[in-house]
Amino acid sequence: MDALTPHEITALFLALGLLLATARGLGELAQRYNLPSVLGEISAGILWGPTIFGALAPDWHTFLFPRTGGGALAFDGLTTLAIVLFLLVAGMEVDLSTVWRQGKTALWVALAGMLLPFSLGFAAAWWTPGLVGYQAPAPPLPFALFMATALSISALPIIAKILMDLNIYRSDLGVTIIAAAVFNDLLGWLVFAVILGMIGAGHGMPLEHTLWITLAFTAAMLTIIPWCLHRVLPWIQAHTTWPGGVLGFALSVCLVSAAFTEWIGIHAIFGSFLAGVALGHSSHLRERTRATIDQFVSFIFAPLFFASIGLKVNFVENFNVLLTLTILILALSGKVIGSALGGRAGGLTRRDSIGVGFGMSAQGTMGIILGVLALQLELISNEVFVSLVVMALITSLVSGPALQRILHLKKPRRFIDFLQPQGFITCLEATDRWEAIRELSRNIAPYAGLDVGVVSAAVLSRERLMATGIGEGVAVPHARLPGLMTPIVAIGLSPTGIEFDAPDGSPSHIVCLILTPHNDNGAQLEILADIATTFKKPQLRDKTLTVNGFTEFLALVRSGEPT
Amino acid sequence: MDALTPHEITALFLALGLLLATARGLGELAQRYNLPSVLGEISAGILWGPTIFGALAPDWHTFLFPRTGGGALAFDGLTTLAIVLFLLVAGMEVDLSTVWRQGKTALWVALAGMLLPFSLGFAAAWWTPGLVGYQAPAPPLPFALFMATALSISALPIIAKILMDLNIYRSDLGVTIIAAAVFNDLLGWLVFAVILGMIGAGHGMPLEHTLWITLAFTAAMLTIIPWCLHRVLPWIQAHTTWPGGVLGFALSVCLVSAAFTEWIGIHAIFGSFLAGVALGHSSHLRERTRATIDQFVSFIFAPLFFASIGLKVNFVENFNVLLTLTILILALSGKVIGSALGGRAGGLTRRDSIGVGFGMSAQGTMGIILGVLALQLELISNEVFVSLVVMALITSLVSGPALQRILHLKKPRRFIDFLQPQGFITCLEATDRWEAIRELSRNIAPYAGLDVGVVSAAVLSRERLMATGIGEGVAVPHARLPGLMTPIVAIGLSPTGIEFDAPDGSPSHIVCLILTPHNDNGAQLEILADIATTFKKPQLRDKTLTVNGFTEFLALVRSGEPT
Repeated sequence: MDALTPHEITALFLALGLLLATARGLGELAQRYNLPSVLGEISAGILWGPTIFGALAPDWHTFLFPRTGGGALAFDGLTTLAIVLFLLVAGMEVDLSTVWRQGKTALWVALAGMLLPFSLGFAAAWWTPGLVGYQAPAPPLPFALFMATALSISALPIIAKILMDLNIYRSDLGVTIIAAAVFNDLLGWLVFAVILGMIGAGHGMPLEHTLWITLAFTAAMLTIIPWCLHRVLPWIQAHTTWPGGVLGFALSVCLVSAAFTEWIGIHAIFGSFLAGVALGHSSHLRERTRATIDQFVSFIFAPLFFASIGLKVNFVENFNVLLTLTILILALSGKVIGSALGGRAGGLTRRDSIGVGFGMSAQGTMGIILGVLALQLELISNEVFVSLVVMALITSLVSGPALQRILHLKKPRRFIDFLQPQGFITCLEATDRWEAIRELSRNIAPYAGLDVGVVSAAVLSRERLMATGIGEGVAVPHARLPGLMTPIVAIGLSPTGIEFDAPDGSPSHIVCLILTPHNDNGAQLEILADIATTFKKPQLRDKTLTVNGFTEFLALVRSGEPT
Repeated sequence: MDALTPHEITALFLALGLLLATARGLGELAQRYNLPSVLGEISAGILWGPTIFGALAPDWHTFLFPRTGGGALAFDGLTTLAIVLFLLVAGMEVDLSTVWRQGKTALWVALAGMLLPFSLGFAAAWWTPGLVGYQAPAPPLPFALFMATALSISALPIIAKILMDLNIYRSDLGVTIIAAAVFNDLLGWLVFAVILGMIGAGHGMPLEHTLWITLAFTAAMLTIIPWCLHRVLPWIQAHTTWPGGVLGFALSVCLVSAAFTEWIGIHAIFGSFLAGVALGHSSHLRERTRATIDQFVSFIFAPLFFASIGLKVNFVENFNVLLTLTILILALSGKVIGSALGGRAGGLTRRDSIGVGFGMSAQGTMGIILGVLALQLELISNEVFVSLVVMALITSLVSGPALQRILHLKKPRRFIDFLQPQGFITCLEATDRWEAIRELSRNIAPYAGLDVGVVSAAVLSRERLMATGIGEGVAVPHARLPGLMTPIVAIGLSPTGIEFDAPDGSPSHIVCLILTPHNDNGAQLEILADIATTFKKPQLRDKTLTVNGFTEFLALVRSGEPT
């Protein structure tokens, strides 16, 4: 029985560990600067791949990331499983009913948003193949179809993520964008299935068979199968260990469905995506089960897959500026203009249409997945692959900020974003509210570049108007100050409690001092509301009083759950 | 770059999907009969392996579970990753501080419980090798040491599971057993590391190097590393996305640690187990993060690994009754008697000592993992492997029930275990409590084999003594009946509400009728308490009123969380 050697196991686990740590780390760094984490994850792969690590230490690189042998095959199996599971999660995010609800507009957006970049891509690849990187002996028609698909497919998971970040995932506009992206992706995958069939990557099954089986399977997975699953899931939850029964069932359905689509000649990810849509449709799939699958896959498997993209080729050697620019312009202009025109035709206002255009423009994940497959099948060259990855990254980068600007959206502000280590006091010396306000003011005034007297005077005079104890042991003394550029929060804990005249008569153990700029009307209310919501949980309040410092407090609030 | 072919990917995913579904299904079935789920999981492998499926359909078997080529290597990589992750979870269950707390007694139990079966096993394998299945050309000394280790190592995860099931995980006796099992396993792994070094499975590193590095690494992972992790974890939680930062960090530590131990010549699982102990020690690792890792690993990866055990050999062809009995008797008697003697020496009572003996006797998982490695290294024959697996299964089967009987323990009873489909009414017709009691009695009296009049009269007379509304919309009319063999519960929902004179004055929407045998004093109180605890959650109460039938209700209570 073939098995990995200890040497191969050592290299595999070390490679996985290093890749995961780097991918997560750079992913976090990207998010810190409001960039999609996928950017950091791919960069981790570029770092460990032939581009940098491979050029600096070729021997070590060959040990850690062998290109042949058992280690390479096991790594390939793992990353294939990773992307299959990621597509399951992406599918589960699709809400089938919203697709029907915003159907008409979404259909317009999807069709126009697909047709324009598809036509542009196809025309360029057919009449001027050299311009978009065609290299013999790739078959010209499949190549042109592939480029057209890669330029017109959207990135459902990235789009969902951006809309959630902007808090418009459940708004009418958000639903329209998501529904259009679903149509778009389904169409894109179907075209891709046709291409795979054309180049005989489908086990030699005749193309029309692949096509019909694909259509029948897709139809079943969107109609009958969700209906069946919705009936089976409660039975499984009623009669098996929770959540093991449901988890095992969902994963089994995903794997068998993936094997089926791989067998009929289209890629396994198509099957797992549809399995995700079918499973996610059932309201019986509990939030907790979704979260468990989602967290493990999004934070472990997805980073590993996206990092593995960076390992594939040398991104410096194969970077072609002209090619990348051409692909980027075709993709971005085609998708934005096409989707916006579709939005107008579907009855949206001018501004919403442009918003929809940019909302649909993120082409991250799906385009890259197609690119990996096309590279393996030698349909595209390394240069085109690199251009597609860069295009995917840039369109994903542009989408969020553009949408935010066009729709005048703001991210909800959290109080912890304005809390500095200096502003956190684990044990207040003060015994009454006036002293507490002075103590907190002393700590943060220097940091705010303000005079201690000015700060405490403003807060004290506000406090005199009306006491700021809001009950359950929390007080929120605050003031708006001229000359302040950004909100500042300071928090002091008082184990003995300080009287802040709370409506429930309890003394305050958590005192949050809030300073906001004089001309920013929203900031104060937003931060007050956030503090009230956060400390509503009794367990969190109790646990807050036991923290040993700023970092532990931040960890507590971020994880939203006591140890 | 080597990659799996579509043919191999199809087989791999289909095999994984079928194996997972069968393993989970049979695992559930085993639990239904109070057997450890690992029994069902291994059976799934035997079903799909050469023993049954391979004998019935050899061609299909070769397609699904190839023994050579890319598919076999990818499958091996995945199951190796699975067991590495499972050992991470097992390690996280170990509470280092309890080990120190019950130190003295536990040390006695661990040493005596290890020494006796080890000596028995070594003596048998050294002086009568044929009796325990020795086959040339395995080196005699490593073989004898291996058999001694396999007979003396315990099964930490199974023991923890049994103690949790019996609700004595945190009792003094439970902590003693767990602490002893931890010592025992650490010792066992160290001996195993020595054996691996002896037969040169450790990359040719000199044996004494392996030994010293192992000891130093173990010491570091139990002292300095947990201390560092405890300081790093809050920082990660404070400054990264939750729970992605912690999840990625924990998995990276596990993988790198696994690669390290594989490199120094002992197996990767040793590293991930110690990484689990080090990570689990920190109270900053939130319950939610543990649960996410635990659920995904225990319900997806562990079943896959244990099922893969059944795939290894033909269990019918290689089953040797005499050999299996010899190994079983040596393992069980040595472990039970040794641990019990250790318990007496450590100051336990006679009964507690025997309890500890049987508590330590479960030798499931660890013994099998050793067996898989020994089989791969050709240290043992297929026959010995099968005997070890059967021994592991039987000792795991015996442990729980024996412990329960010796310590006179009872599993807490849940009301849903006594609720039948016939006894669940989604919409009561009754409008007052007397009618409601009669309606519910009519539904279950036939099922209980009792006269409707007798049942309702008993419950009504109890109700007249004092109304049974317990507030928050729940009422629990009940009676103890002569002639009843087992408790019976019926539940009726009333959307309009029925007056049951609850202390909070609210009408009851959930009416639970409880009938218990006349001579069973505990049953009524236990079931009443369970109902009160269950319906304390407001979300669960609200959601209960919207269920469409018995199955949905059961699913809701089992998962403990509303959709």
